[in-house]
Amino acid sequence: MFRDATKEEIDDTMNLAWTAFHEYRKRSLRQRAEFMRAIAKEIEAISDELVRTAMEETHLPDPRLRGEKNRTIFQLNNYADACERGTWLGATIDKALPSKTPPKPDIRKMLVPLGPVVVFGASNFPFAYSTAGGDTACALAAGCPVIVKAHPAHAATSELVAQAIWRAAETCGMPRGVFAHVHGAGFETGKQLVMHPLTRAVGFTGSYLGGKALFDLANQRKEPIPVFSEMGSINPVFLLPQKLGESVTETAKMYGASITLSVGQFCTNPGLVIGIEGKNLNDFIESLGSEIKKVAPAAMLHPGIARSYVEKRAAALKQEDVTTVAQSATSAGENEGSPTIASASAKAFLNNPVLHQEVFGPYSLVIRCDDEKEMLSVAQHLEGQLTCTLMATEKDVRDHPALVEAVQDICGRFILNGVPTGVEVCLSMQHGGPFPATTDSRFTSVGADGIKRFARPVCFQNWTDGLLPEELQNANPLSLWRTIDNELTKQGI
Amino acid sequence: MFRDATKEEIDDTMNLAWTAFHEYRKRSLRQRAEFMRAIAKEIEAISDELVRTAMEETHLPDPRLRGEKNRTIFQLNNYADACERGTWLGATIDKALPSKTPPKPDIRKMLVPLGPVVVFGASNFPFAYSTAGGDTACALAAGCPVIVKAHPAHAATSELVAQAIWRAAETCGMPRGVFAHVHGAGFETGKQLVMHPLTRAVGFTGSYLGGKALFDLANQRKEPIPVFSEMGSINPVFLLPQKLGESVTETAKMYGASITLSVGQFCTNPGLVIGIEGKNLNDFIESLGSEIKKVAPAAMLHPGIARSYVEKRAAALKQEDVTTVAQSATSAGENEGSPTIASASAKAFLNNPVLHQEVFGPYSLVIRCDDEKEMLSVAQHLEGQLTCTLMATEKDVRDHPALVEAVQDICGRFILNGVPTGVEVCLSMQHGGPFPATTDSRFTSVGADGIKRFARPVCFQNWTDGLLPEELQNANPLSLWRTIDNELTKQGI
Repeated sequence: MFRDATKEEIDDTMNLAWTAFHEYRKRSLRQRAEFMRAIAKEIEAISDELVRTAMEETHLPDPRLRGEKNRTIFQLNNYADACERGTWLGATIDKALPSKTPPKPDIRKMLVPLGPVVVFGASNFPFAYSTAGGDTACALAAGCPVIVKAHPAHAATSELVAQAIWRAAETCGMPRGVFAHVHGAGFETGKQLVMHPLTRAVGFTGSYLGGKALFDLANQRKEPIPVFSEMGSINPVFLLPQKLGESVTETAKMYGASITLSVGQFCTNPGLVIGIEGKNLNDFIESLGSEIKKVAPAAMLHPGIARSYVEKRAAALKQEDVTTVAQSATSAGENEGSPTIASASAKAFLNNPVLHQEVFGPYSLVIRCDDEKEMLSVAQHLEGQLTCTLMATEKDVRDHPALVEAVQDICGRFILNGVPTGVEVCLSMQHGGPFPATTDSRFTSVGADGIKRFARPVCFQNWTDGLLPEELQNANPLSLWRTIDNELTKQGI
Repeated sequence: MFRDATKEEIDDTMNLAWTAFHEYRKRSLRQRAEFMRAIAKEIEAISDELVRTAMEETHLPDPRLRGEKNRTIFQLNNYADACERGTWLGATIDKALPSKTPPKPDIRKMLVPLGPVVVFGASNFPFAYSTAGGDTACALAAGCPVIVKAHPAHAATSELVAQAIWRAAETCGMPRGVFAHVHGAGFETGKQLVMHPLTRAVGFTGSYLGGKALFDLANQRKEPIPVFSEMGSINPVFLLPQKLGESVTETAKMYGASITLSVGQFCTNPGLVIGIEGKNLNDFIESLGSEIKKVAPAAMLHPGIARSYVEKRAAALKQEDVTTVAQSATSAGENEGSPTIASASAKAFLNNPVLHQEVFGPYSLVIRCDDEKEMLSVAQHLEGQLTCTLMATEKDVRDHPALVEAVQDICGRFILNGVPTGVEVCLSMQHGGPFPATTDSRFTSVGADGIKRFARPVCFQNWTDGLLPEELQNANPLSLWRTIDNELTKQGI
C-alpha cells in the first residue's frame, strides 16, 4: 500500500531534517510547546477517522484505541508543559571567583538538542508509541526534528497522524523538515535511517531482535549514536505468602484481567507469576485458570503477531515439566490469541532459558517454588525487566529483604500490590530497566524525563551576559529553576 | 614491578565487589560522603610520599603534582558535598489520584547505583583522573564499588593511593571490596575487567584507540554496559578578526603558555588555532613562534608518550602544505617534548584527515583561512571536541552567528576569550562532548553531575510510606530537593 522509501529519498529526508534542526532548535521552549499542543489538537480533530483506520489495521477495539488516542494527546500536552517549565534543561551556573588562585571563571551549563532523531513506530501502540507518540513528543520538546519510520502494520494510521503533525507545523510556522515520515516494510529502510550520518539518536519500541539490531548498527557507525530501544519484558510478579493467603481469589481476578488486557499485547504484560508450593498457590492457579477460561480469544494486532504468539506459546508449552493450566473455553478464530496459563517448577524455569523468553500475547507462566529460598533464586536468575511486582503485605516485605533487593535490582518500575499493565504518564514514571528490557537503564521512554535522551549539556565559560542563551542569563527571563553555586533557585543574579 | 592480575584474581575481585555492592549501596548519602572525605584526608596525609613517587614515575614537576593532588582532594570533598545534598538523585513524586479514571497510583522515583564500576587510570593525571580521581569519586558517590585498573606508567603512585583508600574504608567501616586495585600492563587485564559479567559500568580517560576499544567490547557483551570514555580532542581556538586586531601579542602570550603547559599533556590542550589571512594573523603567528621558542623542552610522562609525540608531530609536519613555524630554541633531551608550532592553509586542513588528529604534547597547528567563509567551513568539518574557544569581541560574536552555531555544535565546553586548559571542578562543568571526544555526549566526567553516569532511575508504584527508601518518604527526612507533582520543593507531604 505504501512504497518503501528509496536510499535517495532517505538521504533527502535527512538533509531536510538537518536544515530544519538549525531553525527548530532556536524556537523558544514556549514555541516548541505550542507546536506540540497544536499536534494534539490536530489529532483530536481527526479522532474518528484515526480510530476507524487503526481499528482496520490493528484489530484493536474502539474503546482501547480511543483510550490510547487520549493518552497520546495527554502525552503531547504533558511533555509540552514540561518542555515549557524547562527544569529538564538542568540550567546550572557557577559564578566567577576572580579572587581564587587561579581565578575561577564564570561557567553556565544547560542541555541542547542532539539533532535529528529517528523514531520507530511500535506495532502494539499505533498512537501512543508511534508517529506522534512518546518518543516523538520527547524529541520535539528537546528541540530535535523527528523522522518516523512508520510501522508497516498500521501505515495508514501513521500516515494520517503524520499529516496532522504537518498541519500543526504549518499552523505554528515550523520549518519544513521538522517532521518526516518514511515507510518501509523491511529492515533495510530502518537500517539506512540509523546509519545515516546526519541521524543523531534513535528511539525504538518493539522486539528484542529489532531493538538490539538497531543498537548494534548504531554502535558500528563511524560516529556511534545513542539508541534507546525498549524491548519488552516478562514482568515477573512475586506472590508472597501472607498476602497470597489473604487474597487468593482477588489476586487471581486482578491478574486474569491484566494478562488478557488487549489480548496481552503490552510490553508490561505479566508473563511470569512466581509463588510458593502449597494450598494457597494451588487455589490461586485454579482461580486464575477459571478466570482465563472465561476470556474469549480476540484478534491480535496483525497476522504476524498472531502467528508468533501461537509458535512461541507452543514452544513454551512443550518444554519439559511445563503443564498447561487453562486456556480460553472459546476456540480461537483466525489470527486470534487464545488466553493461556501454564505452570512449571522453579527448577525447570531455572534450567531452561526458553521459559525466560517473552511470549507476546495473553499468556502467563506460573512458577511453583519449593520454598522462599527457591523464590529468591528465581529472582536472582531473572534478566532485566521493565517492571517487577510484589503481591505482599507490609510484613511480607519486611520478612523478605533479600528478595525485595534482588527484585529491585532487575527492574525499572517496582510495583507493590498492583498490576504492571497501565503505564502512568508522569514525571516520576520509569519506563525502562536493565538490559535486555532496554539498551540503557539510565533513561526512560515514558514521562517527560524521556526528553533527556535527546539532549546533551553544553557549558559556556566566560561568556558575557548578553551573549548567553536566555536560559542562562543573569536576569533569568524565563523564570527557570536553576542551580546557582550549588543551590536550586528561581532567582536571578 | 607489579604483576598483572590473573583471570582468577579478576574473577575474585569482581565477586568481592559484587558482594560489597549489596552492602555499600545501603550506606546513607552521609556515610558515602564521609568515606570520600576520609579518602581525601588519607591522601593529604601522605602528600609528600605521593608527590615524590609520582615525580619519579611521571616526570611531572613538584608544583604541578601538588596542584593535581589538591585538585583530587577538592574533587573528593566537592562530590562528597554533592552526594550528601542528594539533588543528583532526582527524587520525583507523583501523588495518587484515586478519583481519576483509571485511578492514578502513587509513583516515586530516584536514582539507584548501577553496580561495580571499572575505572581506568589516565597516564597524564596520576591523581585527579586515576586511582582516587573523578571517576572513582563519582562512582563511590553513586553507591557503586570501584575497581581501578592502575595505569602501568604510574603503578606505584596508584598503589599508594589505593592503600590510602583502603585505610579510609577501614576507618569508615566500609565493606571489603568497596574498592579494588588491579595491575595490568597490557590490554588483556582491561578487557577481562570490562567483559566480566558483574561489571556494570566503565570510566576511562585516555587515547581514542583505548577508549573506543573498551566501548566496542562493552557493547559486544551479552549484556552491554555503559562506557564513558573521554578520549581527548584538539580543542580548536577560533581567532575572530576584531578581537585579533585588538590583542595579537596578548593572545599569542596566553596561547604560548597554554600550549606548553605541562609539556602539552592535557586533553584540553589547544592543538588547533584558526585565523584569517592578513597582517594580524601573521603577527600572531610570529609572536606565538617567539613565545614557543622561549619554552624549554621538558620530560614527558613516560618514554612511550615521548616517542608517540615525536612520531605524530613528524607525521603532521611532513604533510603537504604544513610549515613549521617555530620550535623551542633549546634542543630536546631524551624523552623530552619540544614545543612546536606549525601552520597550514585551511584547504590543506580540510582535505587531510591526518591534520585533524591529536598530537598529544606541546604542539599546535595554526590554520590560515582565506576568509570568514573558509573559517566557517573549517568549523563545519571538525570532529567532536571536549572544548572549543572563540577569541572574539562582542561584535565578533554577533557578526558571526553561523560560525558560533557551528562551533557550539561540536563541543561540550564553549569558551569565550580564555584558554581551554584548566578544567574547573564545579557542577556547571561539562567535560564531555560529541564523539570522538567521548563515547556519550550526554554525560560529563568532571563535576558532580558525573555521578549520574553510574546510576539509574527506579520508580516505586503504590508503596506504603514506611516501606519506601528514606529519600522518597512523605516526611522528606533527608531534606532533599524533590519534584512533587511537577514542582520542585524541599517540603514534605
